[in-house]
Amino acid sequence: MEERPAASKERTRGWPRYEAADLGFRHYWYPVLEARKLRDKPHALTVLGENIVLIRDGDKVRALNNRCPHRGVPLSAGKREFPGTLTCRYHGWTYDLKTGELVAALTDGPDSPICHHAEVAVKTYPAEERANLIWVYIGDEPHPPVEQDIPEQLLAPDAVVEPMVELRKGDWRYAMENAVDEAHAKYLHRHAAFYILYQMAGYQKGIRMVPSEDGRWLRRFSTPIFEQGDYPGLGKWPPREFWRILHRSTAERAVEHPVLCAATLPSTMWVGHGDWEDFQIFVPVDREHHLTLQVSMKRTRGLGKLLWRLRFWAYIRYLHHGLLNRAQDGWMVTLMDSPPEQLFRPDIAIVAWRRWCQDRARRSPNEAKAVLDTAAASEFRKTHEQDELTLSR
Amino acid sequence: MEERPAASKERTRGWPRYEAADLGFRHYWYPVLEARKLRDKPHALTVLGENIVLIRDGDKVRALNNRCPHRGVPLSAGKREFPGTLTCRYHGWTYDLKTGELVAALTDGPDSPICHHAEVAVKTYPAEERANLIWVYIGDEPHPPVEQDIPEQLLAPDAVVEPMVELRKGDWRYAMENAVDEAHAKYLHRHAAFYILYQMAGYQKGIRMVPSEDGRWLRRFSTPIFEQGDYPGLGKWPPREFWRILHRSTAERAVEHPVLCAATLPSTMWVGHGDWEDFQIFVPVDREHHLTLQVSMKRTRGLGKLLWRLRFWAYIRYLHHGLLNRAQDGWMVTLMDSPPEQLFRPDIAIVAWRRWCQDRARRSPNEAKAVLDTAAASEFRKTHEQDELTLSR
Amino acid sequence: MEERPAASKERTRGWPRYEAADLGFRHYWYPVLEARKLRDKPHALTVLGENIVLIRDGDKVRALNNRCPHRGVPLSAGKREFPGTLTCRYHGWTYDLKTGELVAALTDGPDSPICHHAEVAVKTYPAEERANLIWVYIGDEPHPPVEQDIPEQLLAPDAVVEPMVELRKGDWRYAMENAVDEAHAKYLHRHAAFYILYQMAGYQKGIRMVPSEDGRWLRRFSTPIFEQGDYPGLGKWPPREFWRILHRSTAERAVEHPVLCAATLPSTMWVGHGDWEDFQIFVPVDREHHLTLQVSMKRTRGLGKLLWRLRFWAYIRYLHHGLLNRAQDGWMVTLMDSPPEQLFRPDIAIVAWRRWCQDRARRSPNEAKAVLDTAAASEFRKTHEQDELTLSR
Repeated sequence: MEERPAASKERTRGWPRYEAADLGFRHYWYPVLEARKLRDKPHALTVLGENIVLIRDGDKVRALNNRCPHRGVPLSAGKREFPGTLTCRYHGWTYDLKTGELVAALTDGPDSPICHHAEVAVKTYPAEERANLIWVYIGDEPHPPVEQDIPEQLLAPDAVVEPMVELRKGDWRYAMENAVDEAHAKYLHRHAAFYILYQMAGYQKGIRMVPSEDGRWLRRFSTPIFEQGDYPGLGKWPPREFWRILHRSTAERAVEHPVLCAATLPSTMWVGHGDWEDFQIFVPVDREHHLTLQVSMKRTRGLGKLLWRLRFWAYIRYLHHGLLNRAQDGWMVTLMDSPPEQLFRPDIAIVAWRRWCQDRARRSPNEAKAVLDTAAASEFRKTHEQDELTLSR
Repeated sequence: MEERPAASKERTRGWPRYEAADLGFRHYWYPVLEARKLRDKPHALTVLGENIVLIRDGDKVRALNNRCPHRGVPLSAGKREFPGTLTCRYHGWTYDLKTGELVAALTDGPDSPICHHAEVAVKTYPAEERANLIWVYIGDEPHPPVEQDIPEQLLAPDAVVEPMVELRKGDWRYAMENAVDEAHAKYLHRHAAFYILYQMAGYQKGIRMVPSEDGRWLRRFSTPIFEQGDYPGLGKWPPREFWRILHRSTAERAVEHPVLCAATLPSTMWVGHGDWEDFQIFVPVDREHHLTLQVSMKRTRGLGKLLWRLRFWAYIRYLHHGLLNRAQDGWMVTLMDSPPEQLFRPDIAIVAWRRWCQDRARRSPNEAKAVLDTAAASEFRKTHEQDELTLSR
Repeated sequence: MEERPAASKERTRGWPRYEAADLGFRHYWYPVLEARKLRDKPHALTVLGENIVLIRDGDKVRALNNRCPHRGVPLSAGKREFPGTLTCRYHGWTYDLKTGELVAALTDGPDSPICHHAEVAVKTYPAEERANLIWVYIGDEPHPPVEQDIPEQLLAPDAVVEPMVELRKGDWRYAMENAVDEAHAKYLHRHAAFYILYQMAGYQKGIRMVPSEDGRWLRRFSTPIFEQGDYPGLGKWPPREFWRILHRSTAERAVEHPVLCAATLPSTMWVGHGDWEDFQIFVPVDREHHLTLQVSMKRTRGLGKLLWRLRFWAYIRYLHHGLLNRAQDGWMVTLMDSPPEQLFRPDIAIVAWRRWCQDRARRSPNEAKAVLDTAAASEFRKTHEQDELTLSR
């Protein structure tokens, strides 16, 4: 066996911010819950390591830190005694939902001197409802408008959005890298019940990650190879299986529709499926868990909305997302155990994504509007070519 | 929102011994098991971090450290081969129940040279059966008589005692502070099925903790407020609910019978219920668990004993203790997460209890008889007033 | 109670290598699985802290480190795409089963530059199938032939071997010491359903551990005492129980057949049962688990093989091994908690075993052929007598 140049390993390491982001990147809006699941009761969840209680307040959604400063009981166990407030279940400490201010301590009477003090206020988080999802801003103020962190497609007036949210084990970066990674689909998903009748490419060539003009998306391009490969000493692969006759695969369609996948910060992968679109969003929970959101969207109106919803609930939700993403990708995310790692040529996509995060993830809320300028694009292209060269040795 | 003076937080911190007592205060007798549950077989349990095996020896109860010095097998797995002894299940090492001495090593024959040596003896603990409970002394010798650490009411000749013991999650101090705390009852217990028909006070005023004349008990006094409060900007509370018509609450009765609650070391809360009494005793197990004992007692004789037992088993045990204490107080003890904490006016009761422990918990068994002298009572009263003043700012 | 001389404790401590061997002794072949349980699919297991995947390759058995160097996914989740290889389920990295070399990366095509490099090879372990078991060598190369580490009896041409393997909780040394220990059988196993009709010795005298001539085995000798002992102040023991009439015990037979037990490195105990033999082998898994193998063997041919298998499956497997070893010895191994420990006279057997490991466990594969020479045997005898003297004080 040959020794590879040591540089090949080192060269692909240049993203300390990314490696430090165990709990994700702050200063972003994250989707955290299907809007229809937030009803009358307070809803507790953890994102980016923060314990949060969500609650509806008329037509607003409110998010507060889920801990009563008195003795640390979660406010999500609380009740609503007055409009616009949440009352801790233990001693009746009552907080203004909008400001987090302690406005009453019921068991100490109306003259309780504890109220209105700064150190007994509960931290609040900006929260909004958009595209059938609840979004929460985690980071320093001033926060950007929520629209800035929602993929623009989901905000189109004719977008019909069907989200699903699952808590999963595993580092959020494993899940996002799995989405960015093109190669595994050719092998892992080959035997998915979902793809069993499809002719699938065996591998791909020329993976390239190209920034969009507005600097928001990192698009993935490649050429799928449908011919059998001849592996020296081993034989031909993939096998010709007579039942794979019905369709050409998603990958094959890629030849005609060159952009089918694109990633965006903080942790969203867009996948085009021809007439519908799939947003996979991975929200860090703690060091060992993340939320996987699969947000399926079709632009349609009238009767089309009904047909789309039927298709989603009859097929996409359970067969496509369930068998493909949950049973296979989710399984791999659970099994992955790296670093150490040894990257190969198709991992150029992952390397580009890591570098993208390293260079472009917000350092402060004031960067929220930054876009990729021409110089940065050119710089990105150069390092991308360098990374590719390294992985090809 | 106003800033509170920083001193207000610091002022309520003066109990390092109490904070260090993760495993409780030593040099006390603790009740650990319903006497009727100790039958023929050895019974294993952990209290104050000590692993203990309880066993009956004729009309005595014995307590030994639950570890055979040979290879560390628990003696509670053992058998009784000879009267007055316990034999380890593994190699037949046989211990005298009273002294813990190794009196035989059966698998080495009658001439085994290992016997009678000091380093193979098992530690013993003083143990007694009183008031339908097994009591064990944890601490240095010489131990005081068990009667000194049992609430005197339980030893009355006509006391009919019904104990129940449960292992619960949570720091024992959370559980004891919850018992000492008056305010939560007005809010948390308002919706207990148990109290649903009672008119309850909304809050209370003037909580005072007053030492008993013999220095043994710290009694809680306060004035319940039954009128609705008018909370500025929020509205009136508590709501008038037409179904709360049958009874005035325990708290209301407090106006007529001023002393209804009292705490005593190491971790006992007495609650008077008019014609019966309830002792809540919290025994540290390890850093994350405690035993909650609810010892219900009525002084009665003859047919009264039968009626009391009927009432206990038909009502108090499952409805009163089960719904009120286990389902609500036990829930809060599980949820609590402090420090940090922010105390309010009613927490004067908890502060007084912490200070009581700080000043008066035994440092050695020789202190067992110490009582509160006049100077100490006067000192306690002064700091109590000071604490109250601080919490009122 | 008397003080024992402090030396008695210290004197029995002289085996730092043994105490450090939490994960067992390296440079040995270990049996890890019943051969019949390794079928078409890869089989994952952990031994001596190493994660291994076993797989059949024609008439060979292969063992590889169970981690794909790419992203750390276990190879045991993989598939067989080509003969003599195993393919990682995630991206199709394909390894030669014999060498561990990466021979294809299917999703990167036949020209993938990652292949054949040393740092993407997977570590392989020598593996063999013998005596109905899979054996794996854990240690440095060069490895000795597997036959060197298999008890010679199991390799006899007429040996009919019935192995069973169980994962158990507990340190492997507890399990092996329990097997080496003679005394516990007289007490712990007295009430095993299995022995309930046997007249059993109460204790034994003169336990001696004697090296075999070839230096491979450490044989245990002793004299069982069937008379009742008279324990001062306690009474006579064991009790005469009228139902123990059918047989004399295994121990009694020992008087006629002096060698019935012998230990060998790395962790095997041989027990003779007259017409069949039992090998108890304890294979370290991690710091808290081990495999217990019970390998039952009878030398027979023709119809005798069938009768032996019937006896094994109808009786030995469930009643003898199940009730005696699993329910009792396995229970004790779970309960044991030492050091600290206080050894007694019969523990001379355990002390001898520890010293045997300390002095003779391989330090490197080159020691594999070392045998006990005369000087070493004489030295062992001297320390053994010294240990015995110490334990008799």
